[in-house]
Amino acid sequence: MRMTQWATALKDAALGKSYVGTKTLVFKPKSKAAPVPLVMILAKEDAEFSSANVGKAIGHKEMRLAAPDALLQYLSATKDDVSPLSFPAAKSTTKAAPSASAQAIQQAKADAKIADAELIGINVRKDGDFSEWYQQVLKKGDMLEYYDVSGCYILKPASYSVWQAIQTWFDAEIKKLGVENCYFPMFVSSDVLEREKDHIEGFAPEVAWVTKAGSSDLEKPVAIRPTSETVMYPYYAKWIRSHRDLPLKLNQWNSVVRWEFKHPQPFLRTREFLWQEGHTAHMTLEEADVEVKQILDLYRRVYEELLAVPVVPGVKSEKEKFAGGYYTTTVEGFVPTTGRGIQGGTSHCLGQNFSKMFNITVEDPKAPDEIRGKPEGKLHVWQNSWGLSTRTIGVMVMVHGDNQGLVMPPRVAQIQVIIVPVGITSKTSPKDRDVILDACAALEKTLKSNGLRAKADLRDNYNPGYKFADWELRGADLRDNYNPGYKFADWELRGVPVRLEIGPKDLERQQVLSVRRDNGARAPIPSSDLVAQLPKLLDQIHKDIAEEGAEVDERAPSMGAKSLCIPFDQAQFGDVAGKKCPQCGSAAKRWTMFGRSY
Amino acid sequence: MRMTQWATALKDAALGKSYVGTKTLVFKPKSKAAPVPLVMILAKEDAEFSSANVGKAIGHKEMRLAAPDALLQYLSATKDDVSPLSFPAAKSTTKAAPSASAQAIQQAKADAKIADAELIGINVRKDGDFSEWYQQVLKKGDMLEYYDVSGCYILKPASYSVWQAIQTWFDAEIKKLGVENCYFPMFVSSDVLEREKDHIEGFAPEVAWVTKAGSSDLEKPVAIRPTSETVMYPYYAKWIRSHRDLPLKLNQWNSVVRWEFKHPQPFLRTREFLWQEGHTAHMTLEEADVEVKQILDLYRRVYEELLAVPVVPGVKSEKEKFAGGYYTTTVEGFVPTTGRGIQGGTSHCLGQNFSKMFNITVEDPKAPDEIRGKPEGKLHVWQNSWGLSTRTIGVMVMVHGDNQGLVMPPRVAQIQVIIVPVGITSKTSPKDRDVILDACAALEKTLKSNGLRAKADLRDNYNPGYKFADWELRGADLRDNYNPGYKFADWELRGVPVRLEIGPKDLERQQVLSVRRDNGARAPIPSSDLVAQLPKLLDQIHKDIAEEGAEVDERAPSMGAKSLCIPFDQAQFGDVAGKKCPQCGSAAKRWTMFGRSY
Repeated sequence: MRMTQWATALKDAALGKSYVGTKTLVFKPKSKAAPVPLVMILAKEDAEFSSANVGKAIGHKEMRLAAPDALLQYLSATKDDVSPLSFPAAKSTTKAAPSASAQAIQQAKADAKIADAELIGINVRKDGDFSEWYQQVLKKGDMLEYYDVSGCYILKPASYSVWQAIQTWFDAEIKKLGVENCYFPMFVSSDVLEREKDHIEGFAPEVAWVTKAGSSDLEKPVAIRPTSETVMYPYYAKWIRSHRDLPLKLNQWNSVVRWEFKHPQPFLRTREFLWQEGHTAHMTLEEADVEVKQILDLYRRVYEELLAVPVVPGVKSEKEKFAGGYYTTTVEGFVPTTGRGIQGGTSHCLGQNFSKMFNITVEDPKAPDEIRGKPEGKLHVWQNSWGLSTRTIGVMVMVHGDNQGLVMPPRVAQIQVIIVPVGITSKTSPKDRDVILDACAALEKTLKSNGLRAKADLRDNYNPGYKFADWELRGADLRDNYNPGYKFADWELRGVPVRLEIGPKDLERQQVLSVRRDNGARAPIPSSDLVAQLPKLLDQIHKDIAEEGAEVDERAPSMGAKSLCIPFDQAQFGDVAGKKCPQCGSAAKRWTMFGRSY
Repeated sequence: MRMTQWATALKDAALGKSYVGTKTLVFKPKSKAAPVPLVMILAKEDAEFSSANVGKAIGHKEMRLAAPDALLQYLSATKDDVSPLSFPAAKSTTKAAPSASAQAIQQAKADAKIADAELIGINVRKDGDFSEWYQQVLKKGDMLEYYDVSGCYILKPASYSVWQAIQTWFDAEIKKLGVENCYFPMFVSSDVLEREKDHIEGFAPEVAWVTKAGSSDLEKPVAIRPTSETVMYPYYAKWIRSHRDLPLKLNQWNSVVRWEFKHPQPFLRTREFLWQEGHTAHMTLEEADVEVKQILDLYRRVYEELLAVPVVPGVKSEKEKFAGGYYTTTVEGFVPTTGRGIQGGTSHCLGQNFSKMFNITVEDPKAPDEIRGKPEGKLHVWQNSWGLSTRTIGVMVMVHGDNQGLVMPPRVAQIQVIIVPVGITSKTSPKDRDVILDACAALEKTLKSNGLRAKADLRDNYNPGYKFADWELRGADLRDNYNPGYKFADWELRGVPVRLEIGPKDLERQQVLSVRRDNGARAPIPSSDLVAQLPKLLDQIHKDIAEEGAEVDERAPSMGAKSLCIPFDQAQFGDVAGKKCPQCGSAAKRWTMFGRSY
C-alpha cells in the first residue's frame, strides 16, 4: 500500500480548533554596529509585529525582517530550521567562527562527495548532499543554466522539450473537455489586482511592479500577474450575460512572476515560471466539482503517464488552500531521497467568492417569475481555476535522477535512444570504421522514421568509454585500449533512457547491444527486431521507474511537517474509526498525509 | 505582376548620401496656463533637443514631448501627419473649436457608417473609416477584448487559435532545420541590456522597468525583455567553446514588452506581444546567409500558405534595418484598402557585431599552427535572429475582412465549417424539428472525425436568418416567417469560411446547402459527398482569397512613404538599367518598394 508509512492518522489539525498556531519571525538590524545580530520572535500566528515596535523593544530603531541568507550567515540555518521545535541549541547566535553544527554539516557534505567521479560527472551522492546533487544534475545534465537575475533560470532544450511534451498532451486533453485557449496581458492594474482581499493578501508580498518605461515614470505602476484570477474575471463579468454563455472554459499558457524572497530552487521556487492556468465558470457547484476532479485527474496522468512519477490526489486543508478559494485539490508527489512531499499541481474550486467580488452573474433560468430580472433572480457563477507549472520538471528530476545524472522518463525524453559506435581502435581500417559509423547513422534514420526520438553520436573527438563487462560480453580484447570514456558518461548524465552500441561484432551478428539507463541492464537485440522491440523496452522502463518512484523510506516525518493533503482514496489506509488524532487525542475523522514539503 | 504599380524605381535613398534626413518634434507645456499649446520643431534628424532647451527658447521651463493624443486634440492629426510635407495649413494650432479639416474628417466618418447594419454587425464601411472598421471587426468578430492597461489587449480563443496554428506549423518546420526550443527569463539586468550600444539605442525608450517587489524597492531595477539578444548572448559566449558546438540554433516562444508611446493598434502595435524569436550562431557568414533566407521563406509560407496573405520578400534599407544588426530581410504585406505596406516578419543577419560585444568566439579550425590558441586564432561567430509575432493576425484581418466582418482563412480558422439548421417554423412538428437538429449534430460529428473543424449551431434562442434568395432556392414559402436573423450574421461576423444549412428539403434531397463566407457563393452538396468535397472547397477558398489579397489599387504612394524593402525578385519589375532615381536623378541600381507603412 503506497505511502502508508508516510501517512499518519490525524484529526485534520488545520480544521480543528484544539491547537494554537505559531510563527517564528527573525529581525535584523540594518546597521552592522547594532547591539544584536538577529532577534528571533516566537509568536501566535495571528500576532502582528512591526519592525519599528521590535526596534523600540530593544532600543534600536532600524530593524528589518531578515532575508534567508542572514539565517545562513548567523545560524547556519535555513528557514525550515527556525522553529522552536527544530532549532538546535548548539547553533551559535553570534557572528563567530562556524559552529560545531555547521562543521557537522560541512563534514556531511564532504562525505557525500563521490571520490572517483569524472570531471564531467556528478561529484556528490544524491543521498548525501541532495541539494548540491540537484543543482549539479540539472546543470551538468544540460537541463538548466543559472542566470544573472536572482531566482530566474534558463530552461535549455533538454528541459523545455519536457514542458512541450506536457503541453502537447495536456492541451489536447483539455480541448476534449471543451476548454479553449486565450491570452490575457501580463500586466494588471493595482485597482483590479487588489479587488479580492483574501486573494491579494496571499500574493501581495510577491508582486513585481513596473513603475518606469524608458526614462519616464508611469503615471500608475502596473503589476506583473502572479496568477490571473483578478486579471481575467472583470472580463468574465462582461462576457457572461446569460446561462447560455456557461460553462465558460478558458486556459492560457504563459509565465507568471512571484518575486519570492525565500531561497530560490530551480523549477521548484523561481521568480518567473511557465505554467498553464485554466479558469472556468459554471452554473452549479456540482458541475464545478466534476471539473475540478477531471482536471486533477489529468494532472495525475501527466505525472504518472508522462513523467513516471506516482502522486497522491487529495484535498488540501483549509489552511493550505488557495488564497480566496473555496477548496483546493492537489496531486502530491514524494521525493524518496529526502522523505519530503512535493505539491505537484492544484485544481481549485473558487466557489462564488470571486464571482461575488467581480459581479459575475446570470439570470437564474429556474427563478420564479416574480423575481425574474430583479437582483434576487440573479445567480453568481461557480468558478474553478487550475494550474500546472514547470515544477513538474523539478519533481521528475528529483524522483528519478541518480548518482550518474538524470534518468529521463522515456515518454518525455528529448532523446529516447542514443546510438554510439564502439569497438573502433587504432587498428581499425578507415573502411571498417566507416561501415560502423554508417550503420549508426542509418539506424538513427530508421528509428526516427518510426517515430522514435533517436540520435547517433558520431563525434570523432570523444571515446565511447568501455567497462570490463563490455569486453567480456563482446569477447573482444580491448583491454589495451582502456579509456574511461566520455560518450557513455555524457549520455548517462543526460539520462537518455536507452543506449544502443554498434561495434564490429554486432554488425557481424546482425544485432545491437542495448543498455538501459535506469538499471544498466544490457541485452543484444537482433537488428531486424529493433523497431518492434524498442517501444516495448521504453514502455518497460517507464513502468519500472514509476514503481521505483513509489518506494518510500521508513523514517518518521521530520520536524517542520505540515498537512499535505487528505487523500481521496481513504480506503487504502484502512478504517479510520477508532483511531485517534495523535496531536489532540480526539476521535479521528479522516486520514491526512503529513510531511515536510518543498 | 504583383505590386508593380506600388513599386517605384529609386536609388535606395537610405543608402545614398544625396539627401538630408529630417525629423519633426512636438513639445507641449506641462501647465495648461502656458503661452503656447504646442511647439513643433522641424530639424535635421541627428540634431539633439532637450525639453529644457526648447523651454528656454520660448521662456517656459516645463516643456515635454507631446503624446499622440495632444496631436489629435490640437491638430486633429496623427503622428504620420506631422511632417512639413503633409501638415495641412488649414489645421488649427489653437485649442479652438474643431477646424474645418477636423470637421471634414468627422463628415467622412459619418459617411462611412453602414445605415442598415444590424446591432450585432459592423456599422462602418471598411473603405470608409478603416480604423474604426478594424476595431469593430476584431471586437465584434470576437477576436479581441480591450483591456484596462493601455496598449494591452486580450487575445480571445478565435485569435489565439490562429496563433496556435501558426506555432504548430512553424515549430515543426524549424525543428526540421535543427532548431531547438528553450526559455530564457523575461527579466534582464541593466548591465547586460545596455552592453550593445546601437541595439540599446533602438530599444531603450520603450523598455519597461521593474523597480519594486511587494512593498520593497529592488536594489537594482530589472528590465523586461524587449527582445532577447542581450538576454541570451552572454550565455552563447559560455556555451560555445569549440567549432563543434556550432551551429547553435535556439528558439523561444514568449512575450516581449515594448512600452510604446505611439497610438496603440491591436495586434500591430501593442505593449506586450506574443512572438517567437530564433537566435542562431554559425561558423561562417555563408552559413548564416543561407539560414536567414530559409527562415524568411518559412515566414513567407506562414503568410501565403496559412493566412492566404501574399507578401514580398526582400531586404530592408540600412536605415530600416534591425538596431545593431548587419542586414535585415523582411516579408512585406500590403493592405489594399488603405494602400499601406505592413512589415510581416523579419529575419536578421547580425553579422559579428554581437559576437564581438559578447565575446562569442571559437578556435578557428583552419588557423595556422603558429596562432593556434592565441587571440588571433579566434573566430567571432556569425549570428542571426528572426522573429514572427501576433502581428500576423492583424495583417490577416486587415487584408481579408469585409463589411460583414472577419473572413477567416480556412487553414487557421478555429471553426472551418458551421452547420446551421434551417426551415424550422412554428408549423414544424417537434419530431420533424428533432430530425433536423439530429442531422446537424450527426454531421458535426462526422466532419470532426474526418479532421475538419466543424460546429453545429443548435442554439434554440436564435433564428438562422433567411434572405429571399434562400426561399426561392429551396422552394419553401417562408415569407411569413421573415426574420432578419442572427445566426447567419453572427457566423459571417466571425468569418467562418463555410456555412452548411440543413432544412427539411435538404434532408429529403439528401444534400446540404453550402455557402461561402468570402463570396457568398451557394451550392448544394450531396450528403454522401461532403467529406470528400469540403476539404477541396476550403482549399479553393484559400486560393481565391489569396489572389484577392494581391490586388492593388492604383493610387500613388501617399505622403509619409518610406522604403519598405528591396525585393529579392528584382526581375519581376523589369530591367533597372537606364532608370533614374526619382529623388536625386542618379542612375538607379535596384528597385525598391516605397509606401506608407503600419
